[in-house]
Amino acid sequence: MEPRISLITLGVEDVAEAATFYERLGWKRAESPPEVAFFQAGGSIFGLYGRESLAKDANLPPEAAPKGIFARSTLAYNGRSKDEVDAVLKEAEAAGATIIKKAQDVFWGGYSGYFADPDGHLWEVAWNPFFPIAEDGSISFPE
Amino acid sequence: MEPRISLITLGVEDVAEAATFYERLGWKRAESPPEVAFFQAGGSIFGLYGRESLAKDANLPPEAAPKGIFARSTLAYNGRSKDEVDAVLKEAEAAGATIIKKAQDVFWGGYSGYFADPDGHLWEVAWNPFFPIAEDGSISFPE
Repeated sequence: MEPRISLITLGVEDVAEAATFYERLGWKRAESPPEVAFFQAGGSIFGLYGRESLAKDANLPPEAAPKGIFARSTLAYNGRSKDEVDAVLKEAEAAGATIIKKAQDVFWGGYSGYFADPDGHLWEVAWNPFFPIAEDGSISFPE
Repeated sequence: MEPRISLITLGVEDVAEAATFYERLGWKRAESPPEVAFFQAGGSIFGLYGRESLAKDANLPPEAAPKGIFARSTLAYNGRSKDEVDAVLKEAEAAGATIIKKAQDVFWGGYSGYFADPDGHLWEVAWNPFFPIAEDGSISFPE
């Protein structure tokens, strides 16, 4: 697992409203379905996703991501292939993580699983054919 | 506020143990006091900090960062000066954020405040003279 974070995704109440806040700060929303908002943030991608959807995506019940201050978010590590996703999940498990969603083909066309680190922080490990990964590990939207 | 994330900090139970997990994944811990662990992660810095200390740093009670799955974390935006910190906090407030800690000189030698976005996600806005910011906004440890 290379030392890099591909996506930081915040669980939000209303994606459009949450996106408006970041747009007011001058951040430029990338094209995406309305259910999710993405912004290029340096060499990573910053995402906003419904908090209950974010929990569900990690196989957790909606109440795992309640409303309120100090809200919930996930990190993602994107690999360059499905094999890399499998390898990283195996490596994380061997290092002490708990697999909370086995890697699987997912509805948006990628392949993804989740682990929780020993403190319970969620990492998605994904292969996403739509977000190219550069040589240096930075991730971006297609040109 | 430029579209970039300087630090992603996870609230953990025991910093040394949490760091061991990421070291097992091959991530290289940077030099720091034992109370905090930092890792270079692409153009951002990945941090591990006691969950109660993380809450306290944002002026929140310890129970704001309970143990367990889907644990709490913060994002940070580092500016190039104290003035930029003040300006970004003002900009965030005007965009709908809540200031939860006014910018102030802090014990580690920097200047920092916190806002919560409309969904309650915490952003520290800081000037940190020890972490240089490159032209492209990426952040790293001093050479």
